[in-house]
Amino acid sequence: MKKYNVAIVGATGMVGHSLVQVLQERNFPIGHLKLLASIRSVDTEIEVMGQTYKVEEARPEAFDGVDIAFFSAGEAVSLTLGPEAVRRGAVVVDNSNAFRMSEGIPLVVPEVNPEMLASHQGIIANPNCSTIQLVVALQPLQTTAALKRVVVASYQAVSGAGKEAVDELMDQARAVLDGTTTMPLIRFPHANAKVQHQMAFNMVPQIDVFVEDGYSKEEMKIIHETRKIMGLPNLKITSTTVRVPVVNGHSEVVNVEFDQHVSVEQIREVLRESPGIVVMDDPAELLYPMPAMLSGRDEVFVGRIRVDHSVPFGINMWVVSDNIRKGAATNSIQIAETLIARGQL
Amino acid sequence: MKKYNVAIVGATGMVGHSLVQVLQERNFPIGHLKLLASIRSVDTEIEVMGQTYKVEEARPEAFDGVDIAFFSAGEAVSLTLGPEAVRRGAVVVDNSNAFRMSEGIPLVVPEVNPEMLASHQGIIANPNCSTIQLVVALQPLQTTAALKRVVVASYQAVSGAGKEAVDELMDQARAVLDGTTTMPLIRFPHANAKVQHQMAFNMVPQIDVFVEDGYSKEEMKIIHETRKIMGLPNLKITSTTVRVPVVNGHSEVVNVEFDQHVSVEQIREVLRESPGIVVMDDPAELLYPMPAMLSGRDEVFVGRIRVDHSVPFGINMWVVSDNIRKGAATNSIQIAETLIARGQL
Repeated sequence: MKKYNVAIVGATGMVGHSLVQVLQERNFPIGHLKLLASIRSVDTEIEVMGQTYKVEEARPEAFDGVDIAFFSAGEAVSLTLGPEAVRRGAVVVDNSNAFRMSEGIPLVVPEVNPEMLASHQGIIANPNCSTIQLVVALQPLQTTAALKRVVVASYQAVSGAGKEAVDELMDQARAVLDGTTTMPLIRFPHANAKVQHQMAFNMVPQIDVFVEDGYSKEEMKIIHETRKIMGLPNLKITSTTVRVPVVNGHSEVVNVEFDQHVSVEQIREVLRESPGIVVMDDPAELLYPMPAMLSGRDEVFVGRIRVDHSVPFGINMWVVSDNIRKGAATNSIQIAETLIARGQL
Repeated sequence: MKKYNVAIVGATGMVGHSLVQVLQERNFPIGHLKLLASIRSVDTEIEVMGQTYKVEEARPEAFDGVDIAFFSAGEAVSLTLGPEAVRRGAVVVDNSNAFRMSEGIPLVVPEVNPEMLASHQGIIANPNCSTIQLVVALQPLQTTAALKRVVVASYQAVSGAGKEAVDELMDQARAVLDGTTTMPLIRFPHANAKVQHQMAFNMVPQIDVFVEDGYSKEEMKIIHETRKIMGLPNLKITSTTVRVPVVNGHSEVVNVEFDQHVSVEQIREVLRESPGIVVMDDPAELLYPMPAMLSGRDEVFVGRIRVDHSVPFGINMWVVSDNIRKGAATNSIQIAETLIARGQL
């Protein structure tokens, strides 16, 4: 079996850690493995398959001989080093926002649009976490009826803001429980924000910066990326994204309007038969997806499926997935696996 | 100035405590005050206006001489003792679900439908917390255009499940922070549920029991109560309610479709001019309502107001309010104040 030289850029971050984890779990055919990060993290030791790897500096020469590079070190690093890696012969699966909406760059969720990989020019974009779980759940519904409109409200975990944000949530929670008056306030709504909010025991209705019309970048990502991935440039979709005090696992209330009648049983049926989805939906048994219980899983979980009586043909559902795994690491590795299966790597 | 003999039924609960608090803050013209509860709590001492009151047993005779009784001790108590209190000459403002949807019983939010009080027969129902903040925000919008459809996703605080639920959230959070394997699991989704869920650092997409079509009772309350209060029996509205690890203060993502064009500035303007609402909406300053910062306030706070481009005429907004105060205690007392102002007490 052919093996591939793999580089992970941003190996010390949360997604980097998860990439290392998931590559092992899925027995990805790794030849050489390079763990790359900024100069700060050089020589950090990371255990992979019983071997200790030292983190190397992410610079152009590091990509010589690399077949596939998973980038998860932010937009700036991807913009600089992504094209360098491609020039040196690597295929780049990029988890940043750098190339997602660029013309000609495939934005791929393997369960939804693997065919987009055919035309890649070296860089493949991994969608934003909140988009991935949404399109995995929406795509199968189209086999029952056309989507007329989608309204999304998100409940997004703190891991999406990075390791330091999770630490800060925990420190804040402890401060609240202990009744201390000081708590760290540096990561919410984001690290560079001029105002900082408490996240513990609170809801912060802002993820990323505000960009246009009062929408946050996260909200616009859901709208634009969903259209691109599903190949529905005119899909009517709106979203509101909210950061919640959950460590890991995003949840979404998804309201879907169809162009014709679809029963809840039909919906459950097509979702059950779709790859990467677990239908977890039994109100009588108080069974529905919850993020704290599903952290560490790779599937998208759907529950609370029911008819929306406010439109002729509509449903409400509740969609939960591990934003670090399916929302980032696992999806990236699935892209690489799909490239291999298609003979493109 | 006329004074009124007041009874609080359920005086030892969270809403009871808040009723005592808000009556004092608003200088409600109290003559005699009776604090009532179940036999378990009899002789509990509660400080009111510098005086110590002993809790008495809530039984029919306790209402002799009472002018207005605020009930917040659950449906069963309201069903039994509410009519008894009325028979003895009291007006009952009931915070339970017992009478809300009963024909002929006014269901009142003073900012929205005070005129419904005219026809009361002794019992006035206080709506459910998640409904109150919604209708306060929706009602003024009707002066700009008719509501075609409303889609609500809620983020509801644990105080709505009672004092013990708040304690359990805190105990669970401490267990998670300390990494202990045991934590109390008796209050979520509700105290009588056959399965119990972790609430700390989690989302629980169930509030109250499931009733019909996969909807929870809380979701149906939002739908039915909103229609009754706004006098729009055919209003197209759907909702998904979720319990979140916030101590106090409910949040709602509200998507509204109108029958004609309304600008965001118009919306802000009518909301600003409406009683009981604070528009807190300045993305440039990262200003929007957050429950942890607004606990203890009596207003309904609205932010993140923006155009929804997925329909011809629509908006998204984010609505936060203290569910124990405006969602229960304050609204009940405002009902009593409105009765006084109307000469009905």
